[in-house]
Amino acid sequence: MRIIGIDPGLQRLGWGVIESEGSRLRHIGNGVLLSGQGALAERLARLFHALSEVVARFAPDGAAVEQTFVNKDAAGTLKLGQARGIAMLVPALAGLEIGEYAPNAVKKAVVGVGHAEKHQVEHMIRLQFPGVTLANADATDALAIALCHLRHNQASHRLNAAILRARG
Amino acid sequence: MRIIGIDPGLQRLGWGVIESEGSRLRHIGNGVLLSGQGALAERLARLFHALSEVVARFAPDGAAVEQTFVNKDAAGTLKLGQARGIAMLVPALAGLEIGEYAPNAVKKAVVGVGHAEKHQVEHMIRLQFPGVTLANADATDALAIALCHLRHNQASHRLNAAILRARG
Repeated sequence: MRIIGIDPGLQRLGWGVIESEGSRLRHIGNGVLLSGQGALAERLARLFHALSEVVARFAPDGAAVEQTFVNKDAAGTLKLGQARGIAMLVPALAGLEIGEYAPNAVKKAVVGVGHAEKHQVEHMIRLQFPGVTLANADATDALAIALCHLRHNQASHRLNAAILRARG
Repeated sequence: MRIIGIDPGLQRLGWGVIESEGSRLRHIGNGVLLSGQGALAERLARLFHALSEVVARFAPDGAAVEQTFVNKDAAGTLKLGQARGIAMLVPALAGLEIGEYAPNAVKKAVVGVGHAEKHQVEHMIRLQFPGVTLANADATDALAIALCHLRHNQASHRLNAAILRARG
């Protein structure tokens, strides 16, 4: 099971790909995509092409995107929404199922508590994937989102298995 | 010069295509795209495919998208942003230049005043394109956005021509 996690943003979009083989986890890749300068539409097209390339290259089986509700100004939220639209569209066009997780759910899955600090998340990611170079904070968050999705999937598989055993 | 106007929305995305030949304006088509039910990513993918089809079918030379800053809740703004991301992406992938206009600029260009009511905009669109069936209010707005873009283009062409004459 290979998962791409995506931390959407208009300026920087973080991505991280991890894989589970039974109970073992493996880091596959992480990085950050920059939309650069220019008109909004050009920047969105740049993110679209770059993220499509990442998805084509790593061929994940599923995707997870951070569910953000920005409480800054409306203009900032609209910008984020536009980038998030691209972040959701690209895996959908590749036929992937997409999990959405609130930041607190990601922290809870990775660190154990929903109100964890950013540096605690990074610490756990470094522990989980020792020796891996993290592109930046957005890429680290993207790996955390992917990890959260894998753990939710594993938990629901265990639950389904338990239900089947109980029925059997 | 053929322009597609787009009124973005997650549930309903309005589009309208118009053409200018010299000083004459012609309605080419208008409609509304529905994202339907289901997961957000699926709905965005549906809008993407449907809007890509419209752009391929009508082959516009330029696009114009409404620039909205919703002052409702952040969740609503994020949703609109996601749909707007798709509305900007599709013409950008087709290599079109995209104009962005605030609602007041659209009203001013179409009705003459920035604080015009919705029904005044519809009235002017019906006067401009007599006998045309308007798909719904979003499609009407999309035609207004396209009209606004054409008038801005014509005004800047006239200005450039005047500058060239003054220089010549």
